[in-house]
Amino acid sequence: MFEASLRPRRVVHAHCDLPCGVYDPAQARIEAESVKAIQQRYRDAEKMKSAPESAEDYRSRALQIKEQRADLVKHHLWVLWTDYFKPEHLEKYPQLHELFWTATKEAGLAKKSQDPEQGQKLLDAIDEIAKIFWETKAA
Amino acid sequence: MFEASLRPRRVVHAHCDLPCGVYDPAQARIEAESVKAIQQRYRDAEKMKSAPESAEDYRSRALQIKEQRADLVKHHLWVLWTDYFKPEHLEKYPQLHELFWTATKEAGLAKKSQDPEQGQKLLDAIDEIAKIFWETKAA
Amino acid sequence: MFEASLRPRRVVHAHCDLPCGVYDPAQARIEAESVKAIQQRYRDAEKMKSAPESAEDYRSRALQIKEQRADLVKHHLWVLWTDYFKPEHLEKYPQLHELFWTATKEAGLAKKSQDPEQGQKLLDAIDEIAKIFWETKAA
Amino acid sequence: MFEASLRPRRVVHAHCDLPCGVYDPAQARIEAESVKAIQQRYRDAEKMKSAPESAEDYRSRALQIKEQRADLVKHHLWVLWTDYFKPEHLEKYPQLHELFWTATKEAGLAKKSQDPEQGQKLLDAIDEIAKIFWETKAA
Amino acid sequence: MFEASLRPRRVVHAHCDLPCGVYDPAQARIEAESVKAIQQRYRDAEKMKSAPESAEDYRSRALQIKEQRADLVKHHLWVLWTDYFKPEHLEKYPQLHELFWTATKEAGLAKKSQDPEQGQKLLDAIDEIAKIFWETKAA
Amino acid sequence: MFEASLRPRRVVHAHCDLPCGVYDPAQARIEAESVKAIQQRYRDAEKMKSAPESAEDYRSRALQIKEQRADLVKHHLWVLWTDYFKPEHLEKYPQLHELFWTATKEAGLAKKSQDPEQGQKLLDAIDEIAKIFWETKAA
Repeated sequence: MFEASLRPRRVVHAHCDLPCGVYDPAQARIEAESVKAIQQRYRDAEKMKSAPESAEDYRSRALQIKEQRADLVKHHLWVLWTDYFKPEHLEKYPQLHELFWTATKEAGLAKKSQDPEQGQKLLDAIDEIAKIFWETKAA
Repeated sequence: MFEASLRPRRVVHAHCDLPCGVYDPAQARIEAESVKAIQQRYRDAEKMKSAPESAEDYRSRALQIKEQRADLVKHHLWVLWTDYFKPEHLEKYPQLHELFWTATKEAGLAKKSQDPEQGQKLLDAIDEIAKIFWETKAA
Repeated sequence: MFEASLRPRRVVHAHCDLPCGVYDPAQARIEAESVKAIQQRYRDAEKMKSAPESAEDYRSRALQIKEQRADLVKHHLWVLWTDYFKPEHLEKYPQLHELFWTATKEAGLAKKSQDPEQGQKLLDAIDEIAKIFWETKAA
Repeated sequence: MFEASLRPRRVVHAHCDLPCGVYDPAQARIEAESVKAIQQRYRDAEKMKSAPESAEDYRSRALQIKEQRADLVKHHLWVLWTDYFKPEHLEKYPQLHELFWTATKEAGLAKKSQDPEQGQKLLDAIDEIAKIFWETKAA
Repeated sequence: MFEASLRPRRVVHAHCDLPCGVYDPAQARIEAESVKAIQQRYRDAEKMKSAPESAEDYRSRALQIKEQRADLVKHHLWVLWTDYFKPEHLEKYPQLHELFWTATKEAGLAKKSQDPEQGQKLLDAIDEIAKIFWETKAA
Repeated sequence: MFEASLRPRRVVHAHCDLPCGVYDPAQARIEAESVKAIQQRYRDAEKMKSAPESAEDYRSRALQIKEQRADLVKHHLWVLWTDYFKPEHLEKYPQLHELFWTATKEAGLAKKSQDPEQGQKLLDAIDEIAKIFWETKAA
């Protein structure tokens, strides 16, 4: 399983010849998975919290960490949008601007929402971007 | 190809039930790929630099960015070591401490080295950790 | 002069009723002015450097600081794009996405360029965004 | 209005010939406006919060963001105090040290206070500094 | 007293000849003292809070600041572990890996615990590391 | 030696009852020692650099790291000045503002200077502040 998950990405990167060179939507995705996991744990605070803290404190910490993770999602998406994608990509995928705008707005919304379904929408938006990303890398 | 590279990791994460929950050695790996790519570009500065800058300036920027990327490699590895791995993992993989110590020291060395083979050694060290990581997730 | 420069902005903010509330393209502009000033000083390193450092060291420091300032320009622009602007703004200013994409790419280019005219293009791009921003605030 | 608010500052900066060159009290002021806006919203949490979050969570997030904004106010003021102002300024404005000490302490107090009048005092302190700043730039 | 506390450390540092050269477990210790102090104040929130804030808000801020301080403890310890300690130290102190692993895990636990006794355990773990550190410096 | 260097500071902290509670000029001093050490190594680049890098690259990295360390010196001093010192301290030590202004300006100068004697002046300025700090703690 491990072999399968790492090899394709590595090969693709070997074809990369841009100035900075290494981009990967996985960076945004991992932080977004964290956002969704925090939303789930927030809801199950009583069960998820560790012994020495109150559910109230656990939720307060969850909100704080979610804020930071959502900021990281935004940051990684912004970098992809500005630094990786080029005008020729936009020609082929004219929906690019809208996709990134929606996805980063969804990341902002994640700060206010404790609903894992909202986090899933963020993950879906990132996957849509990732699909295009890997298509352009394979091209 | 995209499907192949993302699906396994996603499934594994769904089984995650730790306090913070989401860990992924890919975070360290992506930064380390960046380190190695910068080492390669440093060597080919004349060819890789963009028009408006001198090769000297390009190398100066490369050194600076490599420094930051190597710090990120260290950070992501340290988080895995302290936050993800538990005593029961150490029992099964007694080499864990040494692996992380060596890998983070290799990341420190990457700041001083412009040799992509050094960067490859860093990537190999991360892959060795990742192999164990995914085995513990599958267990 | 001071009165003139601060009063209008303050009044406009008083009408602000968004979730985060306070946005100002001046944040991106100030960092971009810094970028352009660094490009100019890089060129005049011999004259601009202080006594205890060599021109070579002065330029090395200039490159490093410019890198950080350009990153701040990007960050402030991305925040405006995702957090401040709303679909109704996009309807009225359909060029918004393109403007931000171009401006943040120009900020990326500023890391590689030591030419103040490039920095001026970055400032012009920000001013174009700022013009729209203040029109939407006045609306 | 836009023209009026940006042109004077730009002109002043053109005369700037210091080592780092670009300073602007607007950086501290914008963050302080954010502090005051958060204090107001904290008080009106029920009305200001967005649909998917509780008033309690909204206030928790407000406290966290206010903490960061107040830190940025301090940072921008400290930079002005140490980096921009010179002994000759202090001679003409002997109250400078006290003004900055009071203003940064007020920013620290803003972390503990949910009262917009406290935030206004912070803004007033910054305006007093800004007045002197622009006088020294015009000199 | 002041003389006594600063002079020894200064002398020891003068013998330092490593690449980065300056390390000091005091960096981790100061942050850990802060962690413990916050745990104490959290418990005495009613008495410790300042006038303009509620005990609830005080505790929310305490949790947030403790999170950051605990992260700094981890960071300073990780740097010591990877950057300062060398294989020859490990030979003489084979418990080093375990000490750092335990200490950084204790720092992670401090985020969840409001018990100053937990904070004291973190301080004790750091003191144990510091003892070894100063022995290696004196060697 | 270890006992001697850590015990006094610890005792003093036990008497601390301020809102944030834990301050220590050692934080600024450690970073300033690093600044001075880097200035020394910059001068001896040929001897100090590690095998895989050129002296030129070593110096470029030294400049970059010195910049960051000097910023940390400033930050820790600013925090002491604004957060720890109170009006009653200023009454007894009316030179406080000037001491901090001079010390933070010296930290700024350290970015431009490769002369360890300049770094020593920064250390002396911090020691002067530390002397007052510990006197106020003992009072």
